[in-house]
Amino acid sequence: MFDREEHMEEYLEKIGELLRSKQYAQLRDLLLPMEPADIAAILEEGPQEQMPLLYRLLPKELAAEVFVELESDSQELLINGFSNTELKEVLDELYLDDAADIVEEMPANVVIRILDKATPEMRKSINEILKYPEDSAGSIMTMEFLSLKKDMTVADAFKRIRRIGGDMETINILYVTDPRRKLLGVLSVRDLLLADEDDLIEDIMDPNVVAASTIDDKEDVAQAMSKYDYLAMPVVDQENRLVGIVTVDDAMDVMEEEATEDIEKMAAITPTDKPYLKTSVFDTFRARIPWLLLLMVSATFTGLIITSFEASLAVVPVLTAYIPMLMDTGGNCGSQASVTVIRALSLDEVDFSDMLQVIWKEIRVAVLCGVVLAAANFGKMMLIDRMLLGNTALSPVVAGVVCATLVCAVAVAKFVGCTLPLLAKKIGLDPAVMASPFITTIVDALSLLIYFQFATHILGL
Amino acid sequence: MFDREEHMEEYLEKIGELLRSKQYAQLRDLLLPMEPADIAAILEEGPQEQMPLLYRLLPKELAAEVFVELESDSQELLINGFSNTELKEVLDELYLDDAADIVEEMPANVVIRILDKATPEMRKSINEILKYPEDSAGSIMTMEFLSLKKDMTVADAFKRIRRIGGDMETINILYVTDPRRKLLGVLSVRDLLLADEDDLIEDIMDPNVVAASTIDDKEDVAQAMSKYDYLAMPVVDQENRLVGIVTVDDAMDVMEEEATEDIEKMAAITPTDKPYLKTSVFDTFRARIPWLLLLMVSATFTGLIITSFEASLAVVPVLTAYIPMLMDTGGNCGSQASVTVIRALSLDEVDFSDMLQVIWKEIRVAVLCGVVLAAANFGKMMLIDRMLLGNTALSPVVAGVVCATLVCAVAVAKFVGCTLPLLAKKIGLDPAVMASPFITTIVDALSLLIYFQFATHILGL
Repeated sequence: MFDREEHMEEYLEKIGELLRSKQYAQLRDLLLPMEPADIAAILEEGPQEQMPLLYRLLPKELAAEVFVELESDSQELLINGFSNTELKEVLDELYLDDAADIVEEMPANVVIRILDKATPEMRKSINEILKYPEDSAGSIMTMEFLSLKKDMTVADAFKRIRRIGGDMETINILYVTDPRRKLLGVLSVRDLLLADEDDLIEDIMDPNVVAASTIDDKEDVAQAMSKYDYLAMPVVDQENRLVGIVTVDDAMDVMEEEATEDIEKMAAITPTDKPYLKTSVFDTFRARIPWLLLLMVSATFTGLIITSFEASLAVVPVLTAYIPMLMDTGGNCGSQASVTVIRALSLDEVDFSDMLQVIWKEIRVAVLCGVVLAAANFGKMMLIDRMLLGNTALSPVVAGVVCATLVCAVAVAKFVGCTLPLLAKKIGLDPAVMASPFITTIVDALSLLIYFQFATHILGL
Repeated sequence: MFDREEHMEEYLEKIGELLRSKQYAQLRDLLLPMEPADIAAILEEGPQEQMPLLYRLLPKELAAEVFVELESDSQELLINGFSNTELKEVLDELYLDDAADIVEEMPANVVIRILDKATPEMRKSINEILKYPEDSAGSIMTMEFLSLKKDMTVADAFKRIRRIGGDMETINILYVTDPRRKLLGVLSVRDLLLADEDDLIEDIMDPNVVAASTIDDKEDVAQAMSKYDYLAMPVVDQENRLVGIVTVDDAMDVMEEEATEDIEKMAAITPTDKPYLKTSVFDTFRARIPWLLLLMVSATFTGLIITSFEASLAVVPVLTAYIPMLMDTGGNCGSQASVTVIRALSLDEVDFSDMLQVIWKEIRVAVLCGVVLAAANFGKMMLIDRMLLGNTALSPVVAGVVCATLVCAVAVAKFVGCTLPLLAKKIGLDPAVMASPFITTIVDALSLLIYFQFATHILGL
């Protein structure tokens, strides 16, 4: 696949040259064939002062498409340079959901200017979209969808599409509503094309429509669209009236965002909206430090456990050397279980009612893993640490203590790792937060307790 | 949103009842309005022996749609019960890409039976799709797309859609090819509907098409489709001939799969295709144990470092208590950096050429984090550990050693965390493997080395 990003440097150089020699026609010819997302990338990678100039070279419709693809700081920069007429031109070309997204990101003075230049109708719709909670289906839907009446003929429907279809975000999927805007059915443009001219819409529509409510979580909507292979999902209000649709391109963005958020949370990072290199150092710091502090303080317990066994460790100092291995292995086992369960939860593959099944499975996996790890470790301790490295303090009994701890630590880690995310989900917390770092901290403490118990009793310390 | 999964129990009970009383017509009425994915879920959740019976109640076309949504073990079970005529009926209704997916998962004897019952044309296409490498665009494309010629009129195009559009996977996006099948342009069915009947296709098509090659990575294709908001991506062969298309529903599945794979790799798990509860205990064990073993062995180095400082630890035993905290904090800082960079890499937000920028950013974040953590830790050690818990062995100098180590460990962790994924990508390894567990192991060893160096020099051990 041709990837413009790989050729970014060349493009930027060429554009700089054309700009310097004022060859605007050629510049326009260079940009026109590109996808809006690529033009946006070029505008943002190049020097900031050339952005407005390049942007003004684009024809109106393309300009609006590029505008949507820009980061919000670039959008703000452009808007601040726009004349009122220019701003109005861009706004007229935008889809409502995109306009609402932009308004949401802008500072107040820019918002006032935008709302002032928008048509009253657009202003109303933007306000309506912004009213919905941040992560709801309502916040990502568009109101520009095409609806049909059930007593229309196919020919009527085509007339309607030809008349207003150009302003709609999609015409691939069409919804049928009654006079009170209640959702009656769905059909695709293909159904229309394959039907006879005088067929009635109600005879060819599919009356079984899965619809989302405006307050549904946008992640659930995206998940459902992926599951059902939908190109659009109708969104209804509390009275079951069709108020908007979510299109598949927005659903893909939601899925990508949500996966990123889950991954960030699993690594103990507060999710941020912006791409990595666009986030300021301070914002990155702020997203990371609370978790680091919290986890550092929790590690105190591990420290306390060690302190209370300091005397025993002084008697058999070789025990200290295996603390990191036990902690790491426990932590890794715990993350494996927790991350698997967290992902299964967010893909809707398991829920709280599967808890016993999940635990039973993890316990069996843990026994297999624990036994293999302990055996490998016993061999390694005897052959390498004792014989090869000559650590004679390492008796088979000490190795036995380490390996018995390993088996128990793995079992505890898998158990904690698989139950905590399920419990978190149950009580309404985000399961992703129960990933590696938390599990590791808990498992560390438990592994050490087991270790010192075994050591105390078996070695008689 | 109405979620059938939440009502699964009720459905299963009702279905069981209707089956026992042989009320097949009612059973059919219950299933028919559902989405194929939901019917598949019901078939799989219910008792296995009722699956073929329920499946046979479905009308032909819906049956094929449900078949595609089933897990491969259920598909195999059904195929084994099918008569030859039934098998042929299902195959006739399947889209080529779905048929190829199914064939790929079946054991040899089932494959032979399927290929035997498929039309020669289908057999040829399936073979062709299966020839492409597993993660390529070729392996997920469908050959059932609708192509137009540039000298057709809009009316001709509609005739063609009405004639063969019913067998195509989508007609929303149409491709224009020359007599040698070279890709000339693209248009949407909306463009057709808004054009005049006698407009020529070449006048309304968009000649700027981004196309994927059959051997492109399917993840890159899905990413590009998301970036450009495409409903379909054309796939061309080495000679630039259009051989297939990837539709957005498949792209969404790829994105979901790839996010799951990345997450699994980040938690040191070998990715598996199957949903969590469908994977056998042994398969789960197999996916996890190699990494656990590898990481356990790597933790040996950390053990060795401790062993070589055993004498010093015996002199100032209080140092031991802070080992877990230093290791954990280092590990957490490292994961934060690595996971952020890995995700940015897979979303194409950064690449190797941004390395210096990434390092510079992480270093600054590390300084901020390190200083805050060290200050908090110093306070905590002095106020809680020393004054409150009365650990007098903990002098301000010892606390200083711990905190100085913390600052350095954070810096090292962030540096290692952000560089390793970039280096991995550069040399063609999967960056996701360079996540938490690996980084943790490396950072653990480095943190301990720093700790003991500081301890040796500052405390004069």
